[in-house]
Amino acid sequence: MTDIVCQIVRDEIEAAVVLRDEQVVAFLDHHPVFKGHVLVSPVQHVDTLLELPTALMVPLMSAAQRVARALGEAVGAQGTFVAVNNVVSQSVPHLHVHVVPRSKGDGLRGFFWPRTRYADGEMAAYAELIRERLA
Amino acid sequence: MTDIVCQIVRDEIEAAVVLRDEQVVAFLDHHPVFKGHVLVSPVQHVDTLLELPTALMVPLMSAAQRVARALGEAVGAQGTFVAVNNVVSQSVPHLHVHVVPRSKGDGLRGFFWPRTRYADGEMAAYAELIRERLA
Repeated sequence: MTDIVCQIVRDEIEAAVVLRDEQVVAFLDHHPVFKGHVLVSPVQHVDTLLELPTALMVPLMSAAQRVARALGEAVGAQGTFVAVNNVVSQSVPHLHVHVVPRSKGDGLRGFFWPRTRYADGEMAAYAELIRERLA
Repeated sequence: MTDIVCQIVRDEIEAAVVLRDEQVVAFLDHHPVFKGHVLVSPVQHVDTLLELPTALMVPLMSAAQRVARALGEAVGAQGTFVAVNNVVSQSVPHLHVHVVPRSKGDGLRGFFWPRTRYADGEMAAYAELIRERLA
């Protein structure tokens, strides 16, 4: 594949790699939300989280967990934001988990604040729609 | 524990549950980013992603994956945003994975756009700091 992550895996382009083993590669995002923002990807090409094979779940999550822990000491993060965009807003078509260092008062409130509300009965209707597809 | 997820697990408070087994519970967020926004949590109390036991990684990720797939048909999502706040911006102190339905042009651009840049050499320095903690 010619996506950036596959190219990093094959050493065809440079990256600030922080972790690499047979299953996972982790490297700094070039345009970080905050400095120390890491992307964690499976070495094997996987389009989105929806296609992630079960066998890669523990390697990928363990790596994200290790990176999140490391950011505490490495950049003094009080917390982290761990996120995946699937298809929409996914700039690179190879699954990558963003691990972003967070600190209180860092000003990152954009994402979780534009909330909406359900009308009466609407929440139950949505739950039913989703349950049907999960059955 | 007295957090909302533990209370939902014990049936002490109502929730629009869409998935429940021995290890995972998933329910609608009351104040969704978009309607159909689901929270997926381990039944067992776990503070943040950093404390998630390895044995619960596959159950939790598989559930998030199933929910993300279901949202496609259930609410016509073209993609999903899957995210975890650890400590900072974490409103409920029990790990919960947000699975938010996304569509092109839905107006959700807040989070990933406030980007910063590394000065010359700074990216390598950050990578080194993180690598040291991962060694």
